[in-house]
Amino acid sequence: MYTLEHIGIAVKSITDSNPLFERLLKASPYKQEEVEDQHVLTSFFRAGESKIELLEATHPDSPIQKFIDHRGEGIHHIAFEVEDIYAEMDRMRKEGFQLLQEAPSYGADNKLVCFIHPKSANGVLVELCQTIRNREEGEMDGVE
Amino acid sequence: MYTLEHIGIAVKSITDSNPLFERLLKASPYKQEEVEDQHVLTSFFRAGESKIELLEATHPDSPIQKFIDHRGEGIHHIAFEVEDIYAEMDRMRKEGFQLLQEAPSYGADNKLVCFIHPKSANGVLVELCQTIRNREEGEMDGVE
Repeated sequence: MYTLEHIGIAVKSITDSNPLFERLLKASPYKQEEVEDQHVLTSFFRAGESKIELLEATHPDSPIQKFIDHRGEGIHHIAFEVEDIYAEMDRMRKEGFQLLQEAPSYGADNKLVCFIHPKSANGVLVELCQTIRNREEGEMDGVE
Repeated sequence: MYTLEHIGIAVKSITDSNPLFERLLKASPYKQEEVEDQHVLTSFFRAGESKIELLEATHPDSPIQKFIDHRGEGIHHIAFEVEDIYAEMDRMRKEGFQLLQEAPSYGADNKLVCFIHPKSANGVLVELCQTIRNREEGEMDGVE
């Protein structure tokens, strides 16, 4: 069984959406972080064991900007925590899921991440994420 | 703080999607339940403290069928567990959120549920849900 780590929500402006989600969730954002590689600014709220991640594009080429242009603001992806992202990526390939990347990339919140194509997962953009536990993992060869 | 209770995913066929999500989540569905009022067949998977709920329309007028016709299969809503759904509905109204119903309705998994309009929640269809703890709550007046 995987654990639901977070839900990613595409927003036009974190400045505008932070207070809205504070009122919605009865919780304050506990972290804001820019992920330069993915051209996003993120804001995190706790929701029990899981988190809500707001995502704002910081560049017109950001996947978040393309999502908003195409579908408007809303739920962008769901993310599951895994212990060993390399092993789980292998497992997913063998199970017939189409990965959007050959190797993990660096995500927000000290994670290695990999996305699965929604076409192979019932229209759902799925992220696998693994916490980076030590410096060696954080500097592994082959991370995109 | 609210706890993320489940994520609802609209699918064309639970028969087809159950094995796909078994492979995706490394877990078997633990319950299947029809909610006649909402014209849906549901299937539940555990994902840590949260759950994944697959939703298949059982009638052309089902909101799930309309969602699939409009956007295709994919993430339909996110649901937060609350202790007192009546109090939280009042709070939401006061905070300016638009509720999709005047009174709670019966949902799957022994719950009273209420949906919030995505237009007032950054494009996200949000469900509040409260576990029905006793027979009186399960037969309250004013439940739609």
